[in-house]
Amino acid sequence: MSGNKIGKMFKVTTFGSSHGKALGAVVDGCPAGLEISDKDIQVELDKRRPGTSNITTSRGEKDEVNVLSGLFNGKTDGTPITAVVYNRDMDSSAYENLKNNPRPGHGDYTWKARYGLYDYRGGGRGSGRTTIGHVIGGAIAKKILDTLNIKVLSHVIQVGNIKAAKMELNEIEANIGLNSVRCADPDAAPRMEALILHLKETGESVGGIVETIVSNVPAGLGEPVFNKLDADIAHILMGIGSVKGVEIGIGFKAAELKGSQMNDGFCIDEGKINTRTNNAGGILGGMSTGMPITARMAVKPTPSISQIQKTVDLKTMKDTEIKIAGRHDPCICPRITPVAEASVSIIIADHLIRAGYINPCKLNPKK
Amino acid sequence: MSGNKIGKMFKVTTFGSSHGKALGAVVDGCPAGLEISDKDIQVELDKRRPGTSNITTSRGEKDEVNVLSGLFNGKTDGTPITAVVYNRDMDSSAYENLKNNPRPGHGDYTWKARYGLYDYRGGGRGSGRTTIGHVIGGAIAKKILDTLNIKVLSHVIQVGNIKAAKMELNEIEANIGLNSVRCADPDAAPRMEALILHLKETGESVGGIVETIVSNVPAGLGEPVFNKLDADIAHILMGIGSVKGVEIGIGFKAAELKGSQMNDGFCIDEGKINTRTNNAGGILGGMSTGMPITARMAVKPTPSISQIQKTVDLKTMKDTEIKIAGRHDPCICPRITPVAEASVSIIIADHLIRAGYINPCKLNPKK
Amino acid sequence: MSGNKIGKMFKVTTFGSSHGKALGAVVDGCPAGLEISDKDIQVELDKRRPGTSNITTSRGEKDEVNVLSGLFNGKTDGTPITAVVYNRDMDSSAYENLKNNPRPGHGDYTWKARYGLYDYRGGGRGSGRTTIGHVIGGAIAKKILDTLNIKVLSHVIQVGNIKAAKMELNEIEANIGLNSVRCADPDAAPRMEALILHLKETGESVGGIVETIVSNVPAGLGEPVFNKLDADIAHILMGIGSVKGVEIGIGFKAAELKGSQMNDGFCIDEGKINTRTNNAGGILGGMSTGMPITARMAVKPTPSISQIQKTVDLKTMKDTEIKIAGRHDPCICPRITPVAEASVSIIIADHLIRAGYINPCKLNPKK
Amino acid sequence: MSGNKIGKMFKVTTFGSSHGKALGAVVDGCPAGLEISDKDIQVELDKRRPGTSNITTSRGEKDEVNVLSGLFNGKTDGTPITAVVYNRDMDSSAYENLKNNPRPGHGDYTWKARYGLYDYRGGGRGSGRTTIGHVIGGAIAKKILDTLNIKVLSHVIQVGNIKAAKMELNEIEANIGLNSVRCADPDAAPRMEALILHLKETGESVGGIVETIVSNVPAGLGEPVFNKLDADIAHILMGIGSVKGVEIGIGFKAAELKGSQMNDGFCIDEGKINTRTNNAGGILGGMSTGMPITARMAVKPTPSISQIQKTVDLKTMKDTEIKIAGRHDPCICPRITPVAEASVSIIIADHLIRAGYINPCKLNPKK
Repeated sequence: MSGNKIGKMFKVTTFGSSHGKALGAVVDGCPAGLEISDKDIQVELDKRRPGTSNITTSRGEKDEVNVLSGLFNGKTDGTPITAVVYNRDMDSSAYENLKNNPRPGHGDYTWKARYGLYDYRGGGRGSGRTTIGHVIGGAIAKKILDTLNIKVLSHVIQVGNIKAAKMELNEIEANIGLNSVRCADPDAAPRMEALILHLKETGESVGGIVETIVSNVPAGLGEPVFNKLDADIAHILMGIGSVKGVEIGIGFKAAELKGSQMNDGFCIDEGKINTRTNNAGGILGGMSTGMPITARMAVKPTPSISQIQKTVDLKTMKDTEIKIAGRHDPCICPRITPVAEASVSIIIADHLIRAGYINPCKLNPKK
Repeated sequence: MSGNKIGKMFKVTTFGSSHGKALGAVVDGCPAGLEISDKDIQVELDKRRPGTSNITTSRGEKDEVNVLSGLFNGKTDGTPITAVVYNRDMDSSAYENLKNNPRPGHGDYTWKARYGLYDYRGGGRGSGRTTIGHVIGGAIAKKILDTLNIKVLSHVIQVGNIKAAKMELNEIEANIGLNSVRCADPDAAPRMEALILHLKETGESVGGIVETIVSNVPAGLGEPVFNKLDADIAHILMGIGSVKGVEIGIGFKAAELKGSQMNDGFCIDEGKINTRTNNAGGILGGMSTGMPITARMAVKPTPSISQIQKTVDLKTMKDTEIKIAGRHDPCICPRITPVAEASVSIIIADHLIRAGYINPCKLNPKK
Repeated sequence: MSGNKIGKMFKVTTFGSSHGKALGAVVDGCPAGLEISDKDIQVELDKRRPGTSNITTSRGEKDEVNVLSGLFNGKTDGTPITAVVYNRDMDSSAYENLKNNPRPGHGDYTWKARYGLYDYRGGGRGSGRTTIGHVIGGAIAKKILDTLNIKVLSHVIQVGNIKAAKMELNEIEANIGLNSVRCADPDAAPRMEALILHLKETGESVGGIVETIVSNVPAGLGEPVFNKLDADIAHILMGIGSVKGVEIGIGFKAAELKGSQMNDGFCIDEGKINTRTNNAGGILGGMSTGMPITARMAVKPTPSISQIQKTVDLKTMKDTEIKIAGRHDPCICPRITPVAEASVSIIIADHLIRAGYINPCKLNPKK
Repeated sequence: MSGNKIGKMFKVTTFGSSHGKALGAVVDGCPAGLEISDKDIQVELDKRRPGTSNITTSRGEKDEVNVLSGLFNGKTDGTPITAVVYNRDMDSSAYENLKNNPRPGHGDYTWKARYGLYDYRGGGRGSGRTTIGHVIGGAIAKKILDTLNIKVLSHVIQVGNIKAAKMELNEIEANIGLNSVRCADPDAAPRMEALILHLKETGESVGGIVETIVSNVPAGLGEPVFNKLDADIAHILMGIGSVKGVEIGIGFKAAELKGSQMNDGFCIDEGKINTRTNNAGGILGGMSTGMPITARMAVKPTPSISQIQKTVDLKTMKDTEIKIAGRHDPCICPRITPVAEASVSIIIADHLIRAGYINPCKLNPKK
């Protein structure tokens, strides 16, 4: 039972590894009649593609999508959508010395403990390239969300100890594409870039925080008890490589507050029920309130650094050291933003279908 | 599709509400041959039982467990274990004024949005009493963990802005039962209790942080990609009422670190592979390293406070105010610790079976 | 992973055994707003209750239902519905001699092989009493089907080599309650009863065939490939104890036909698309055509007979003989009809929700 | 929620359609360390490949497999195995006249009813080519079964009213490859072939019965109540296109028997518990007895015949007629045998892992 599937009605199964033949996803449960093209998926893949700026890895992958099934005359036909990206620029030579020496901060050792073997070439299936599958699934999910005008946006709000100022949603949308670090604060962004470049030169890496905002979600999305909307969002975000924490709304700050400070009072706003504040981050009792959903995730520094590190030799079972070569991102935050967007989009699309907001069979059941 | 089930092989389905006839759980997938008695479950239920100290709600429930199925001659027999707790001390009168006025910070409104109606009596299924089902499942999970000597322990490390000092595991074990706030720090605990009592008198509530530690987990537990161990732990913890954030190991602090600070080097320790530090919190690549797993969750202040709050009238669709009566915990942290223990125990037990560490059919397949 | 749950959105988890404290079911995923009472469930339970005629076992169980959760003011509230039946008239003494001698035709030995132990008292969870859970789930499913005027009816069409004549649906409805064998053919029914009574006296048992008819199903129900409607119906029916075969529509006769004989031509009938014949049994490509769905299941003779049979001693691992005492049905067909009705109702209800014909959250989303 | 996945721990998700770009499967949950090559899959695909004899369709597909992921150094590595077959010899012209005229006996109309549209080219995803995914999954499942020396074999035992004589397993194995109809009876096989050829010339088709035998299954496989082994086998077999009935062991004949005739007595045979007869078909109480498992399925005549048939025009909603061109199998039984083998292999492999007979993570956990 290995967990390569997410979703209960909008189901995304991903496959592939860093240095295998291909990566991809099968999306099962997308209603028929949704207009979608290869380009819709490519646009999202391009956001996470490596080598697009000097603060990302130099691996030169085009990450071109090939849709193998599920579309008929430019629309989904209710059958599983399979999309594949072939690996092209694979350089496995750099990894030969990792065969028996697990890299600190990576899953090499735990993979070995679980499966008895591990693909030491670029992390195998543990590689960040695995998130190509997330992005394919998310691209299709976003098309579903579009039909209800729901928007999902992820941006970087912290790199190391540089924190972005709090911005309005429209500012974030406007600014996020202006820099390679995908931070909306015009003051913090260049400082973040400078920090990343500096660390890159010194063979170091750095962590950060990525925030995802979902706007225009209808109220009542999420299943009480074990499949609450916040729980399912935390589930998928915590599963992204390098993520060490997830919080919703005011998050960990809630620990310090009193009830009267935390509670968001209700009000009627143009005939609609809203909350006066949004400390809850758009979710109460595990279900959406209709206010924007905000989720933040803590991203650890990329474990691949070019300094000498302590490890062990799995054959001799003795202590040893390791120096990792290869091409890596000094800060994974910018490239993780499209993955966070995709991941949350998958969860929202799934819950929309699970709750009957989207017909599971055909997009426009009346027509 | 409402989400009242957790687990893939060790499956816990819970049911019941605050003011209905009963609450309980069906545990399906427990191997046969596990010695278990009603008392094993009662011990855990007693930890979360209300009315045991002056800092909890005064609702006087004995929460006696009734096991209806799944045991034969004092052992599990491979069939579903059903355990039920009857509600006794129900006082629904206090809730009559909530029929059309959703309580801020509670799921009343979102429940109404989703289902078209809600059980306004004590939060219905959204009540904290729902966690009786978690605790029943967790009690059985703990018996499975016992067979591998795995221990799960939750304790309160913060209430409002009072933070406990960092303690060793054996100190935590020794101290946690010494006070009603379930905090192991002998200095912080009385200050937390005083704060909670003070807030109780002023009709307020307060949040906090609960930490869960799992020790002696074998390496290799967790399924890569979408069912990583940290993701599944975050999933269940974020699903507990009032939780707004979950972090693993060093958590949100990882955002500020460099790779060389974050990475835990490996070492050989008495013939076993360990990490030299444990910033990862016992999980790498979504699988256990064999080091202690640490997970913290941010708990918001109890939304039921006795101050006047802003709400709306769902019938007239006009703004109004509400004052909540009833009996409530001013700080839910102490009573949430057994729920966190139970929840993490369920996840670990499920993964042990999913990964073949525990035989899914019979506890001692050889004998 | 033991399989006590059926359904993907309308999920029924059953529990309990023949001689344990209780049996029952948790139904998760029933939309809110469905009017249902204990009586609706009791009516169905009474159909399968033992001791109601001289051709069934004399075990005197009232099988009174207790609803523990999920109803609020006479309606479902979207939370799991739990219903329990307590065992009363348990006589375990008759089973002491079965401890180490598995009964031929029963699951005693396979249960022992799988779980290392088995509840020898009346078959434990392998008992026909386990279908109390099916019937509880089916009773609720039927209430959902009622909202779309879908009817499910099971009747006995063969006992031993006595076959009922082919009858119209309205005749079956009218006649089925007129005799204890639940056969609609007024000529065959008394002969079946006489055969069963005769075999009962000689310590024998006999098999038969039960047919289930679902009328008024909308077209398009069922999921292509692995969750086709016929596959899901076969799945649940084959899982009922004693069933050795399932066929849809013309069934095994299809093997002998030519394409021109088998194919049902289409026609327009009062503006609606129908098939001119119904050899398909209402299902094409795994999805409903809108025509009546017909499924037949072969029921083996009750394995508990009072003759001496060959078995083995599990302790000494030597051949031995066994004579089964206890109270048993000489022909299980009449009492299996409500179980078949319930089972098929569960599948149809689940598929109605899965396909968007019934809103998964609230029964009347518009109101 | 469309059902393109089967299995709970050994999970096969299939995709693709008759006239799309490709067909294939993702197999998730195969333990690491299993030696497998493209050729192992190709061998199975070749069994169901069209155009290999004069009694099958003349569509000239090579059905070459491409493994995209999941293998590392010739072994499974615990990650999902994805295998794809590209469609080559597609001739969609023959289907243009089917756009609005659903073919009798096919899923065209029900697909339209469910999804609002259908891929009229060769049945789209409803085509028999969809079973390429089954065969890919089955090929991998068979490699797992090999490690326990479990064999799965399907053969044709009836075509129209020509029935094969009952044969021993070793005779079936020896004879099945000797003729194109995959019938082991040397007397019946040529008569079946002659009948099929004759019907092909007259534009007709014919049904038949396929039997699957699984030998060397350990006792105790199968999950009581809703996931019994026979239920899961019936589920997957009934889901194969054209199947109208499934029976286990003596099947429908059980209806006519008395208990003393049906029950298989137990005996000790070389220190092992066997049954003296095998009317049960190797399954009691839904779990394997260790005796050979036998399952038969009724296959309807191929619905595509070249005679004029009654249908309707979906646009004008008027009665009309249709004549189907294209290339079709006059009897699908021979080509369905590898699909039945694959399907049952998937179920057995899944249950072996679910029950702990095969470690879910690594094939040889001790080594």
